Amino acid sequence: MENASGDNHAISAVTRAAVLGAGSWGTTVASLLSARVPTLVWARREETAAEINRAHSNLSYLPGLTLPAALQATSSLAAAVQDADVIFVGVPSHGFREVVRELAPFVGMRTPLLSLSKGVEAVTNARMTQILHEELPGRPIGVVTGPNLAREIMTGHPAATVVALHDHGLATAIQDVLTGPSLLVYRNPDVVGCEVAGAMKNVIAVACGMAEGLGFGDNTRATIITRGLAELSRLGEQLGGQQSTFAGLAGMGDLVATCISPQSRNRTVGFLLGQGRTLAEILAEMHMVAEGVKSCRPLLATAAGFGIEMPICEQVVAVCHEGRTAREAGIELLARKVGVE
Amino acid sequence: MENASGDNHAISAVTRAAVLGAGSWGTTVASLLSARVPTLVWARREETAAEINRAHSNLSYLPGLTLPAALQATSSLAAAVQDADVIFVGVPSHGFREVVRELAPFVGMRTPLLSLSKGVEAVTNARMTQILHEELPGRPIGVVTGPNLAREIMTGHPAATVVALHDHGLATAIQDVLTGPSLLVYRNPDVVGCEVAGAMKNVIAVACGMAEGLGFGDNTRATIITRGLAELSRLGEQLGGQQSTFAGLAGMGDLVATCISPQSRNRTVGFLLGQGRTLAEILAEMHMVAEGVKSCRPLLATAAGFGIEMPICEQVVAVCHEGRTAREAGIELLARKVGVE
Repeated sequence: MENASGDNHAISAVTRAAVLGAGSWGTTVASLLSARVPTLVWARREETAAEINRAHSNLSYLPGLTLPAALQATSSLAAAVQDADVIFVGVPSHGFREVVRELAPFVGMRTPLLSLSKGVEAVTNARMTQILHEELPGRPIGVVTGPNLAREIMTGHPAATVVALHDHGLATAIQDVLTGPSLLVYRNPDVVGCEVAGAMKNVIAVACGMAEGLGFGDNTRATIITRGLAELSRLGEQLGGQQSTFAGLAGMGDLVATCISPQSRNRTVGFLLGQGRTLAEILAEMHMVAEGVKSCRPLLATAAGFGIEMPICEQVVAVCHEGRTAREAGIELLARKVGVE
Repeated sequence: MENASGDNHAISAVTRAAVLGAGSWGTTVASLLSARVPTLVWARREETAAEINRAHSNLSYLPGLTLPAALQATSSLAAAVQDADVIFVGVPSHGFREVVRELAPFVGMRTPLLSLSKGVEAVTNARMTQILHEELPGRPIGVVTGPNLAREIMTGHPAATVVALHDHGLATAIQDVLTGPSLLVYRNPDVVGCEVAGAMKNVIAVACGMAEGLGFGDNTRATIITRGLAELSRLGEQLGGQQSTFAGLAGMGDLVATCISPQSRNRTVGFLLGQGRTLAEILAEMHMVAEGVKSCRPLLATAAGFGIEMPICEQVVAVCHEGRTAREAGIELLARKVGVE
């Protein structure tokens, strides 16, 4: 399908894909796609694009791994999306709107866009698909999410992911092109639920990391993950998401993977906070983005607007942004009165 | 309340407790209780009872930990339950009915019994509370369950547990006596749901261990945990359990803790199977019981009776009892056709 085609039907098969953002997850999704269809990944930095094209590597984000020779990169947004019949956007939340706005003139009216990013925009509290709807109105918009630690997918470990789109035929086309020998791809029409889960899980992973940094064990982590999913579900349901999503791969699955993996940046930030380091110190040493640190405040504000309690998220906000120590946060959580679950 | 009292009301407060079974979890629950009320733990072996009484230790199950001085032990079932107004039964599933049958003459008609065991009886496919109802008809019967790795609770790491009983007042009394400075206790009237979750989670933990033994990472584990919870929920709902239980601490919480903890015996058995060892070799070296290995067959049989698919449980049965390798099991799971989650 041509970008600017007048075709009213959703595409039935993906023939060419674009991925915006050459971070670890963007590069991984582009690598998966390139095994099936011509795929261009957009890197903000020209050197990164050149490295992918010439050395088939991305040392900053996926050190030690070889990318598929078929994967091509560009630092031109226009070139990246020119012939693509689907666009995946894997830009961190703080730069998401800017890239999407710059992209808009080059995107056909029927080209589907799928967010790979799991954050919430500061100030506006907007989710990534809301930004896509605002900046690129009228296009089919969805997300790809799930328990997907990039490095493990690149290594070929068995995993599963979820394509969330309202349009069944389009979802099936994207399911087809993403499915690989070690990757099961599920469909889910609940875009909002998938997206809220993806943003909230990073916040809970920060809390889980804090507990580990304080020296606590697996009961504590499992309890935070479980009660965290309850918070995530309450907020997600209020925003229109489905309980079945929160219990599935995009909800619980992604939450568990992020909370247990030493590779998770959000868990790592929490771990260091739990050990008594300050957020400023930690962020100064990381070159990747920990979305949970930024998303916790807008998510808590959104929940507060609905009168929804999110005690774990509240403690993450307090530790990240209000000077509370992780130990004090733990004591607050344990002092809560509990009854029926 | 006296055991044989004619009182028709549930107890309003626990004044004396008995715990049957001095394994790691029985000893831990008894230790928690002994901080609040006089508590007797029954140990099958006289030497274990003597060790608890004299050395305040249980080297076989909780090496390196000191038990509360207030905790008393006995190897006499009659003595253990004589004055107790609540009895916790923490005997492994294969010896559960025998102990309960021997116990029956000493248990008052109104004395509540709570199972601490997470297994299913071979041959009969009976859950532990079903055995209690059969052998001790008429008594209030429930379970205590949740993400409760014994050693961590003993060490005072923050955790949460669930008391499942139909009777609200009785559940509150037990909630009160179990609550400690680092332990939050929730109530849940869904006894069946809590119990099915407790049994199934051990099976899923075996599968999770297998994936780890095969060298797979956190995405794979998170996916098994999530799809495992879906199996557990399907079976549990069919048996009368509630979805909210499966999404809570007794369901997801316990499942996650068991699947991620190196302390879990079921995960360890799976890990060694994943590394290519045989079940016979592994069990010969363990002195503790891995309930999942025994429960997987009766649970699969129960599900089959309802026409419910449990693909992960099916692979655990095949690897544990039918000579399939863990690698072959993984390939079977990945070959499944998937669609909407």
